[in-house]
Amino acid sequence: MTSNRRPTETELIAWFLAPLASDAAAFRLGDDAAALTPPDGEDLVLTKDVLVAGIHFFADDPPGDIARKALRVNLSDLAAKGARPLAYLLGLGLHADWTADWLATFTAGLADDQRTYGLALLGGDTVSSPERLTLSVTAIGRVPRGGMLRRDGARPGDIIAVTGSIGDAAIGLQLRLDAGLSGRLGLSEAAAAHLLGRYLLPQPRSGLAEAVQRLASAGMDVSDGLAGDLAKMAGVSGVRIEIDAGSVPLSEAPAWPSLPIRRCGRWR
Amino acid sequence: MTSNRRPTETELIAWFLAPLASDAAAFRLGDDAAALTPPDGEDLVLTKDVLVAGIHFFADDPPGDIARKALRVNLSDLAAKGARPLAYLLGLGLHADWTADWLATFTAGLADDQRTYGLALLGGDTVSSPERLTLSVTAIGRVPRGGMLRRDGARPGDIIAVTGSIGDAAIGLQLRLDAGLSGRLGLSEAAAAHLLGRYLLPQPRSGLAEAVQRLASAGMDVSDGLAGDLAKMAGVSGVRIEIDAGSVPLSEAPAWPSLPIRRCGRWR
Repeated sequence: MTSNRRPTETELIAWFLAPLASDAAAFRLGDDAAALTPPDGEDLVLTKDVLVAGIHFFADDPPGDIARKALRVNLSDLAAKGARPLAYLLGLGLHADWTADWLATFTAGLADDQRTYGLALLGGDTVSSPERLTLSVTAIGRVPRGGMLRRDGARPGDIIAVTGSIGDAAIGLQLRLDAGLSGRLGLSEAAAAHLLGRYLLPQPRSGLAEAVQRLASAGMDVSDGLAGDLAKMAGVSGVRIEIDAGSVPLSEAPAWPSLPIRRCGRWR
Repeated sequence: MTSNRRPTETELIAWFLAPLASDAAAFRLGDDAAALTPPDGEDLVLTKDVLVAGIHFFADDPPGDIARKALRVNLSDLAAKGARPLAYLLGLGLHADWTADWLATFTAGLADDQRTYGLALLGGDTVSSPERLTLSVTAIGRVPRGGMLRRDGARPGDIIAVTGSIGDAAIGLQLRLDAGLSGRLGLSEAAAAHLLGRYLLPQPRSGLAEAVQRLASAGMDVSDGLAGDLAKMAGVSGVRIEIDAGSVPLSEAPAWPSLPIRRCGRWR
């Protein structure tokens, strides 16, 4: 498994993916489909994010971090809906120059996050995606029946709450793109590492899912920027949202207003 | 919608994808996730296939047929597991030169097959996949609890049954690759059209799902060829499988043994 001979598709599944699979539902991936017995009295919450090399991550990011990012952007959606993680399916589009070592590190990243967030691989598909690594994750969570927190539930009088400092990932991307930026901004090594880490590895608020569900009337994760995402929530909820810019929590590291922030949405 | 101005992501979802969505579960795609209330006393069956232009279909195939093929390869997996279709999620990786017209035809194909097979769009993600259209479908079906037909259930004494003629899609691919082949084989127009159609548009045996579940001890769809797929079934079931080659149903059209069949698996 440490040699760079490429495994066949069968070996790839047996060596790298089957160990990630749930025995009961996914039959060690030795089938074309998985059976999932839904928890009694609960709803399933389903979300799907696709990540493409050069767009949602850099092809030369550490493979384990790419894997965890692909899982975590989905887990973040689940957490924002008040759902606890249950399982996922993985579409793995391997680029032309993948190696067995690369894949071993990639799947080790998946294994780490499966343990951290308590979910198992149910199934998926492995294909060739010659020019760009392409990852498609369908994540499945669980909530009490009818309990999924929606984006359109915001009501007049509600308070806007966020679970972390805003904008760090966007700054982390700028640091990733421009090796000299950290020095020009006078960032400490620790601050730069924090910001880069926030870009590379989102932190799903899975631990808050139950509190969010008990307390919130609407929820979503911030992926396209606070202002844009709140505008979406306001639109579907039929409310206006006012933000006191001075109250938005920012990390202490960056000289925020001086940064040349470029839009970094999922779309372009 | 018939102009070729490209819609924004929001317009794309509102115009083309939201009409495909289930109101109740998917909130017209105005959310980051969908809630699914599982049918009482049933299991969900989940499968995921990824299709990449130039590998699983031709980039210039009719867009509606590409869409239906992406759905049908998944529906075929569900049928082989004895599951009835319920819903799906779509990861849409749009190539650099997509147009609004292309997308309108593509989504019309999805709408057609949603009606034919009785399932609704639950959610998904739309991204840029510059070099190649990339489609990722997670399909969800339903079976009575514990009733998913597995690949590893074949037992000594079982009979191998197939639901159609074998090899037509592989020949259809050869016809698609070589415009002169049909003439050299002396195929009638109708025969050539039949074989091409079998390549372009799989026919999921959804109508047989219940019979399959009642009668079969193991099931899978044929995607990599009858011999290879039976070998997989034999392997996981711990049995040997014998086939009388003369009993394999072939369509009457092709002069089968003279064809230069190339392997056309999902992997290369």
